[in-house]
Amino acid sequence: RKVDAAALVNGVAAHVLDYDDVTLDGHPSAVLVPAILAQGEVLGSSGSEMLAAYVAGYEVWAELLVREPVPLHQKGWHPTAVRGTVAAAAACAKLRRLSPQETATALAIASSMAGGLVANFGTHTKCFQVGRAAQSGVIAARLAAAGMTASPDALEHRSGFLAAFSPGGKPDLSNGLDSDKKEWHLVRQGLNVKRYPICYATHRAIDAALDLASRHDLRPEEVAGVRVSTGEMQMLMLRNARPQTALEAKFSMQFAMASSLVARNVGLAQMRDDFVCSSAIQSLMPRVS
Amino acid sequence: RKVDAAALVNGVAAHVLDYDDVTLDGHPSAVLVPAILAQGEVLGSSGSEMLAAYVAGYEVWAELLVREPVPLHQKGWHPTAVRGTVAAAAACAKLRRLSPQETATALAIASSMAGGLVANFGTHTKCFQVGRAAQSGVIAARLAAAGMTASPDALEHRSGFLAAFSPGGKPDLSNGLDSDKKEWHLVRQGLNVKRYPICYATHRAIDAALDLASRHDLRPEEVAGVRVSTGEMQMLMLRNARPQTALEAKFSMQFAMASSLVARNVGLAQMRDDFVCSSAIQSLMPRVS
Repeated sequence: RKVDAAALVNGVAAHVLDYDDVTLDGHPSAVLVPAILAQGEVLGSSGSEMLAAYVAGYEVWAELLVREPVPLHQKGWHPTAVRGTVAAAAACAKLRRLSPQETATALAIASSMAGGLVANFGTHTKCFQVGRAAQSGVIAARLAAAGMTASPDALEHRSGFLAAFSPGGKPDLSNGLDSDKKEWHLVRQGLNVKRYPICYATHRAIDAALDLASRHDLRPEEVAGVRVSTGEMQMLMLRNARPQTALEAKFSMQFAMASSLVARNVGLAQMRDDFVCSSAIQSLMPRVS
Repeated sequence: RKVDAAALVNGVAAHVLDYDDVTLDGHPSAVLVPAILAQGEVLGSSGSEMLAAYVAGYEVWAELLVREPVPLHQKGWHPTAVRGTVAAAAACAKLRRLSPQETATALAIASSMAGGLVANFGTHTKCFQVGRAAQSGVIAARLAAAGMTASPDALEHRSGFLAAFSPGGKPDLSNGLDSDKKEWHLVRQGLNVKRYPICYATHRAIDAALDLASRHDLRPEEVAGVRVSTGEMQMLMLRNARPQTALEAKFSMQFAMASSLVARNVGLAQMRDDFVCSSAIQSLMPRVS
């Protein structure tokens, strides 16, 4: 059990700053790397085996993503926790050198362990559900190796993973996997490194605010108001208009704008409870809409 | 960790025969009792405290149920695993005598831990996801007691538990909780004891088949065909037309009818791999439609 606990703890640590890499509508490395390091260490896996496991996890993640036309966030699902659970199981199955059938079982078990909600963004539970995805992947692969059974069609069955998590209930099952023609998602999409340790949905607005602030040498007290245009789904994640803690501030467009104007930065030095609660920030946030 | 492991193991054991009690569109006791026994034992809880915890879990389960107009099965969710996770957290919060705020946090953490799929019915993973619900409830209450944070509105927020698991995305949030006028769901709805250790959706048809078989002294080889009328959602669960194991047979209308005619019973003696694979059963099942 220490192996899965290590995956949990390191997964929480990897995601708690919201500073980890981004792609595939989520944060692949925060789930995959902790699961792979924990499982690989105990198996004595080589570096190249661990890299191959990362690729296996990434590709499974991407194949799940391309089969769903609607962003999972829209219905309240945290895609990193949801898809990461199955992807981490694939990575661990690879490390354990499971057979194709055992690997299918590992993915099916993981499908029943997946979950995690957007409503808990801005609290400890956000990074907990990411760590839990890593942990569940480790457990699912272990259970499959031990002979536990699950349905080989648990992903694509109409009462399976893709249908259940699909916001509209209509996953796209038209494309099979053709390994000959396979194009690697990882090569095409890679990983994006975050510029600011705050929800990705604020980054464009921060770039604009920092640019305006420095170009016009704006002082916060001179700013009558800040109007930000963004999407509805972004605002579903950015649920905290008046954050009181650094964790809450990570999901606040108001804080992102206030910090950009007050500190001319949104970095780790700003993601502190005392800065979030400072009068400069608290007095400016109501002027952001 | 032994406490949550005990809840997991006993939850699996409580549900693996599919012979546990039924109500609230699920199996409350298979989740609540293992969580309560495991947590109550280590806390030294009295019998009356454990009964009160059961009621707390049952009522939370029912309050979640009445806020969703569509059966969760319809989209592939296993309601026992999904709602049971939050209900078990409520039961454990009660045993731990958590404050109202800590209890709300426990339910919110559990909301992020909930999951489980119908597609895995008929495999080991079905009872695993029920045991996991009990385990997750124990963990959620422990984490809340330890000070972990979660959103107090994680159930009703539009990116929360009720919206995410709602097949149509439209939970009914019109009714608040009015503790003065509270009517106890447990008193009104109680618990139903299962007559046969097989999916509840087969029970009516089994009653009819047993009745016909004994009234007309039917011999299986004389039966040209059996036609069963039932609902679409029932057939989503009864996914195995040609089961080869006892676990698969628990989700097979074909087996339920064949066993009724061959053995004039669908009991624990029939839920065995050798009986399921017998030529009498295997040859009759194709005649059931």
